[in-house]
Amino acid sequence: MKDTATLQQKANLLRKWSMISTTEAGSGHPTSCLSAADITAVLFDRYFTYDIDQPLNIYNDRFILSKGHAAPLLYALFGMCGAYPLEELKTLRKFNSRFEGHPVPRFEFADAATGSLGQGLSVGAGIALASKREKINNHIYVLCGDGELAEGQVWEAANFASFHKLDNLVAILDINRLAQSGETMFGHHVDEYANRFRAFGFDVFVIDGHNLEEIDNTLSLANRNSNGKPVAIVASTFKGKGISFLEDKDGWHGKPLKKEDLKKALKELGNVSDQLSFDIRKPAKSKISKASRINISSPMHFEKEKEYATREVFGEVLAGIGKNAALIYALDADVKNSTFTENFMEASPQRFVECYIAEQNMVSAAVGLSRIGKIPVVATFGAFLTRAADQVRMARVSEANIKFAGSHVGVSIGEDGPSQMALEDIALFGAVPGTVILQPADAVSTEKLVPAMLNHRGFVYIRTLRPKTPVLYGAEEKFTIGGSKILKSSSDDVLTIAASGITVFEALAAAEKLRKEKINIRVVDCYCINPVDKKTLLQCTKETRQPIVVSVEDHFMHGGLGDFIAAALAGEQCTVHKMAVAKISQSGTKDQLLNEAGIDASAIITMVKTLIR
Amino acid sequence: MKDTATLQQKANLLRKWSMISTTEAGSGHPTSCLSAADITAVLFDRYFTYDIDQPLNIYNDRFILSKGHAAPLLYALFGMCGAYPLEELKTLRKFNSRFEGHPVPRFEFADAATGSLGQGLSVGAGIALASKREKINNHIYVLCGDGELAEGQVWEAANFASFHKLDNLVAILDINRLAQSGETMFGHHVDEYANRFRAFGFDVFVIDGHNLEEIDNTLSLANRNSNGKPVAIVASTFKGKGISFLEDKDGWHGKPLKKEDLKKALKELGNVSDQLSFDIRKPAKSKISKASRINISSPMHFEKEKEYATREVFGEVLAGIGKNAALIYALDADVKNSTFTENFMEASPQRFVECYIAEQNMVSAAVGLSRIGKIPVVATFGAFLTRAADQVRMARVSEANIKFAGSHVGVSIGEDGPSQMALEDIALFGAVPGTVILQPADAVSTEKLVPAMLNHRGFVYIRTLRPKTPVLYGAEEKFTIGGSKILKSSSDDVLTIAASGITVFEALAAAEKLRKEKINIRVVDCYCINPVDKKTLLQCTKETRQPIVVSVEDHFMHGGLGDFIAAALAGEQCTVHKMAVAKISQSGTKDQLLNEAGIDASAIITMVKTLIR
Repeated sequence: MKDTATLQQKANLLRKWSMISTTEAGSGHPTSCLSAADITAVLFDRYFTYDIDQPLNIYNDRFILSKGHAAPLLYALFGMCGAYPLEELKTLRKFNSRFEGHPVPRFEFADAATGSLGQGLSVGAGIALASKREKINNHIYVLCGDGELAEGQVWEAANFASFHKLDNLVAILDINRLAQSGETMFGHHVDEYANRFRAFGFDVFVIDGHNLEEIDNTLSLANRNSNGKPVAIVASTFKGKGISFLEDKDGWHGKPLKKEDLKKALKELGNVSDQLSFDIRKPAKSKISKASRINISSPMHFEKEKEYATREVFGEVLAGIGKNAALIYALDADVKNSTFTENFMEASPQRFVECYIAEQNMVSAAVGLSRIGKIPVVATFGAFLTRAADQVRMARVSEANIKFAGSHVGVSIGEDGPSQMALEDIALFGAVPGTVILQPADAVSTEKLVPAMLNHRGFVYIRTLRPKTPVLYGAEEKFTIGGSKILKSSSDDVLTIAASGITVFEALAAAEKLRKEKINIRVVDCYCINPVDKKTLLQCTKETRQPIVVSVEDHFMHGGLGDFIAAALAGEQCTVHKMAVAKISQSGTKDQLLNEAGIDASAIITMVKTLIR
Repeated sequence: MKDTATLQQKANLLRKWSMISTTEAGSGHPTSCLSAADITAVLFDRYFTYDIDQPLNIYNDRFILSKGHAAPLLYALFGMCGAYPLEELKTLRKFNSRFEGHPVPRFEFADAATGSLGQGLSVGAGIALASKREKINNHIYVLCGDGELAEGQVWEAANFASFHKLDNLVAILDINRLAQSGETMFGHHVDEYANRFRAFGFDVFVIDGHNLEEIDNTLSLANRNSNGKPVAIVASTFKGKGISFLEDKDGWHGKPLKKEDLKKALKELGNVSDQLSFDIRKPAKSKISKASRINISSPMHFEKEKEYATREVFGEVLAGIGKNAALIYALDADVKNSTFTENFMEASPQRFVECYIAEQNMVSAAVGLSRIGKIPVVATFGAFLTRAADQVRMARVSEANIKFAGSHVGVSIGEDGPSQMALEDIALFGAVPGTVILQPADAVSTEKLVPAMLNHRGFVYIRTLRPKTPVLYGAEEKFTIGGSKILKSSSDDVLTIAASGITVFEALAAAEKLRKEKINIRVVDCYCINPVDKKTLLQCTKETRQPIVVSVEDHFMHGGLGDFIAAALAGEQCTVHKMAVAKISQSGTKDQLLNEAGIDASAIITMVKTLIR
């Protein structure tokens, strides 16, 4: 190996700036950077192929820093690629700096926001899968810490990678022994990791993570790998490596060096020139994926007298659109015959991804797909999307363009019982800033809202129903994000019922019964839960006898449609009453459970009679 | 082996009722029961030690059905133990039946609600850990499906079990090849599972799951195991085993037999007597854990002029109480030096559980601990509790008595950036029915609320702060669930600011500045977010010049304190305005980020001036 000395200097330059920047910031994780400086120096110096002027070029290699707290290392790496002067790292962790405490999209070379641990391998696997399927010959490198290998998601990702034969994926495991609050589960017993990754179908190399020659040889092998197996490089390292008083020492996690210690440390590193750089190669080809507007090619026909499950219509529409929209990927977690993404699978198998029962990996893999311009549609039971709540949170921080489809929402699923009911999903997605939440009640609105969802840039969550429901709308009706539909109104409505999904039909039934008692109520279908249609609802409060909106939803009481409506109408001359599910449900028929939950027609009638003066 | 024929008949009786009950219900998963009938028949007939009159006896063996959709099998098993007539299984999945679609606490022999997959091994590991630590010689059996082994949580649990040397834990893996929507990742390649569990530190037995003799021999070995390794029995089985037209056939997941098919199936089984039973042994000893009231032994002393981090006070109080409260277990995910559960670890190491960075397993293990009467306190960063949202959901369905402690909430954490900020945690816990949510702002209120939390039966979530805050209260103040404190009031307040945690100090600072401009505002410390103190807030609206409550919180806009207040005051003559975090935050100082989020004193002043007429 030529030039080992220079390469060591480059590694030390990474060390130098990891320490300077964190000392300058007064916080951060310098020692977590130091353990990985050697291996990343070799990677960037010899193997990493990337166009720093085009981070989105789909032919780029990818480097995902799963151990996000080593962010200064990441910043130093791209600085040494010439993306910005290293001096700029002195703004680390300062307000409005692109160098945040953990990587976020503000730093344009980060493929995903990381910092919640154990997610990077999934992000990388998502990109690696697309590369494989689309015959792009790049490599996806993911740097993982050892502490984060305790996260189950890592093993979901490992299964996913080996099952899909992602031999373009290289997991670099920085086994530096020390986690935040003490030694990791396995310390320096690297075989524990090697055995696990081998059992999960990886090609495993165990190396000294500070031996540049060994690193180089291993990366060279990993790079030529084409046996269908993903690679895991288990690198035995030392936290704080290179600085005598930091190396392998307890109590240095997440601690910057004091100015004096920094001086001592830099002295130990010797004279490391800031002029050293990585002369990375650009990929031979260049392409950035851009989404074009999606339209339904052929409108569907729904018979007025028939009933349809919105989940089924969702699946059909998605499949139809997917055929001509090459950026759409559909991901499902072994419930494709319930969410009806199986239609998409049949129509566009090359863009369907079976993720098996591993929702966390599914969501983070979608983050990876989004990063390279795909439009991932992530589907499972709404209840099981909560399994990936942290991944959803981080996907939003990553500014990923993901469409979530949750089926089987609410107590209306019936006999399967509470474990399968999504009743907190609106709270979950609603808290995530800027998430559009849709819940079509019938076939027509579903047909129209699926393309609206796909064309919207950003997070969208669509709730679909298990049971079939009657057709409410004519084929000519328009549905938009932020809209609603008044389904029942008269000049003498006493108040307004704002319903969504299954409760729309309960509200309509209540209206019908009340009408016979000469009580008219207005019924609004809030097919868009967020942003909720404030304008229409406010107008209703002005046109009804009492300025009252009663929200009725198949969701728990807190965090649902009712809270969105209350927030939208806050400060207006009106009152919002919430009807929602207040306790854990059970098994039973749809009607029994809607009744028990107090959100059926009879409960609405009682509420209306209580409220009218 | 004696009596194989009778044993086979017992297995077939389990099959018979799994089919009858699901046909009667018109839904359910008979074929998933059939694959595990033989192995569970041997287990219950020969090994399972249990007092059916005392399901909570801590000396009982445990049988956890992780593959919850095989619930009819579970119900048939305990029916054959004499807990109820098998005939009662005909109420399966019917409203108010204890035999729900998936096991819930209504079925008193279920140690946890299951049905969201991949959680049972963690529940079992939690119980097994307590048994080990408390020298109880029982066995914990967990029946897992093969599909659910794709869930990362299973591998978190596997690491946990081997790390903690739980050789009293027996995972029985029902490898029946077929999942819901097709074949599993590995089909009948049982070695894929065996290799994984072996790598994760288990003693592994690969067997024919329908060979009674092999099952018996293996369970016998597993039962005598004392080498410190948990056991995995990888049982190759057939879905639908025993019925020719179901066995290993596609398309039979989650499908009951039609009446005619049932007839054919029962004919194939032959004449199986309903009189067959399991004559299970009772454990030699009996004890049911019961919590007694917890009091602080020695009050802490806080100096008025000093500042304290509520997370630090939480840790100290918990440690102090823990010493004399033998039912309290503290669990942490490698952040014990940030959540300060390390104090508990030092004081009561035998009841501290290091879960490493695996939050999902941590929460489900706590469900197990709760089931045997412990009071588990689960701590990590609030942001990372979202990692276990589905486990929290299921823990609630399980009616577990868990105390959750989330530190580092809100943008006030500063430089670490958005990945570490809990900003959707109130939405998450708030949606879960009946969850008490506490957020003390200072040391004294923390000291008082920790025992209140521990004494409350049910879910409690306490939010603690990273930064230190001034002492607000005297040692004599009382704090109760459902309470609040008026911190600032006059006879001429224009409106009320309802704050919580860090924003209390922003509200006080705003009040101070406004006072100089002769504008008085009332400031309420909503230390209890749910249930929120409606009475006090309502009273405030009546006493202030304008009936306005402005909520200010370090949480995203939707699903937080503001929505709880709006819901509490709905229909009253007042208005609620929400101030909260509306977009993804970044790195910066606490003050910069509170300012950017629009929840600092200056933002409150602007809001007040906008609202007053």
